[in-house]
Amino acid sequence: MNQFRESAGRSAAKALSWRLLGTVTTSTIVFMFTGKWSLSLTVGGLELVSKTGLFWFHERLWDRLTYGRRLPQPSVIWFTGLSGSGKSTLSAAVTSEIAKKGLRVEHLDGDGVRALFPDTGFTKSERDSHIRRVGFLASKLERHGVFVVASFLSPYREARDSVRSMCQHFIEVHLSTPLEVCERRDVKGLYAKARRGELPAFTGVSDAYEIPARPELVIDTDVISIAKAVEKVLMEAGVK
Amino acid sequence: MNQFRESAGRSAAKALSWRLLGTVTTSTIVFMFTGKWSLSLTVGGLELVSKTGLFWFHERLWDRLTYGRRLPQPSVIWFTGLSGSGKSTLSAAVTSEIAKKGLRVEHLDGDGVRALFPDTGFTKSERDSHIRRVGFLASKLERHGVFVVASFLSPYREARDSVRSMCQHFIEVHLSTPLEVCERRDVKGLYAKARRGELPAFTGVSDAYEIPARPELVIDTDVISIAKAVEKVLMEAGVK
Repeated sequence: MNQFRESAGRSAAKALSWRLLGTVTTSTIVFMFTGKWSLSLTVGGLELVSKTGLFWFHERLWDRLTYGRRLPQPSVIWFTGLSGSGKSTLSAAVTSEIAKKGLRVEHLDGDGVRALFPDTGFTKSERDSHIRRVGFLASKLERHGVFVVASFLSPYREARDSVRSMCQHFIEVHLSTPLEVCERRDVKGLYAKARRGELPAFTGVSDAYEIPARPELVIDTDVISIAKAVEKVLMEAGVK
Repeated sequence: MNQFRESAGRSAAKALSWRLLGTVTTSTIVFMFTGKWSLSLTVGGLELVSKTGLFWFHERLWDRLTYGRRLPQPSVIWFTGLSGSGKSTLSAAVTSEIAKKGLRVEHLDGDGVRALFPDTGFTKSERDSHIRRVGFLASKLERHGVFVVASFLSPYREARDSVRSMCQHFIEVHLSTPLEVCERRDVKGLYAKARRGELPAFTGVSDAYEIPARPELVIDTDVISIAKAVEKVLMEAGVK
């Protein structure tokens, strides 16, 4: 796959940078063998003129050849855990670290995606098909060389496993921060609402959370720092 | 964005291919000026040894520089039209032509996506959120340099326009093949079923199709050949 193409300007800049190196080398060799500055400079000069153009054409030709070009192996990093367990914070930090490495990355956040599709409900079947649709999107991006960082409460094991089966390199990160800690944080005030009975199917209070059976990572943000957690995730994803 | 990285093998192959060209040039220049074969070959030989390695390192260095590397400008090519209007055939052909150019492309077909999400219904609201979800996926792929070819009946103008607003370069292709022609083809036997009253909301028979107001292209597959149609679409998308 030949996704990147190089501009003619890039080829010209490379030709010049190489010429500087190359002509100095040639002139030095000629001088070493003849002791004549004039001959060494004449050969150097002629080489300079002839080879700058030659190099440029050589670059343009190689730009058409895909041999030895490769996409990095991306992955789908899936954060699952209770509301308040640290999914959004951690996933945003991981996304920005991957982007800093010059790799393509997309962050899909539960709240963000739901805001775009407000008619998505919270019954088991609605949650499941929501997660499977997000998984489909993630798998397509991954197949085109894009890292996907997904942060979804995703309480049901079956839905998470069906996303796993769609992706090539799936990393399930279970944020195991205890319910009491999440409830104490209650960033969005949702636990308070749920306790008052205002949210009918609130995970951890009035709806089940199925703990991952074989997650690639388990992180309790009450125990380890965000920085340490980010490091663990990047190492698991092979991003150095 | 530095998506592609070059392998060390590619750099080595380029170094050798360039060296062949470069050393022949240098030896010729030296011979022209001195008339001495032995000197010309000595200089050429030394240059061969010193510069092959030098060139390799020069390549490795440039692989880290992103200057002049660019993604092609992709687009979302959206085929809309009645069942039997030629969406699947035409979109498959367009996809394969784009892939042949070495560009990244993803084909999203209505039947294929519905097969993955069988609980997607056919009411206006279900159709609309289905199309908007597909549009979201298409826009994400486009943003990462992937051409998207989408073939969806997508009968409602508002849903198509909302996809348009999500994408950067949206090409709406209206397959205007007349209902009578589509019904005569009836590849899937759906029109017969609909006429017998077995399909409650079948577009063209028992449900409306809202003709695009300002499509980028209008193609009647009853009048022009698939090959001609493909050519038109590729030209509109700027794929040469």
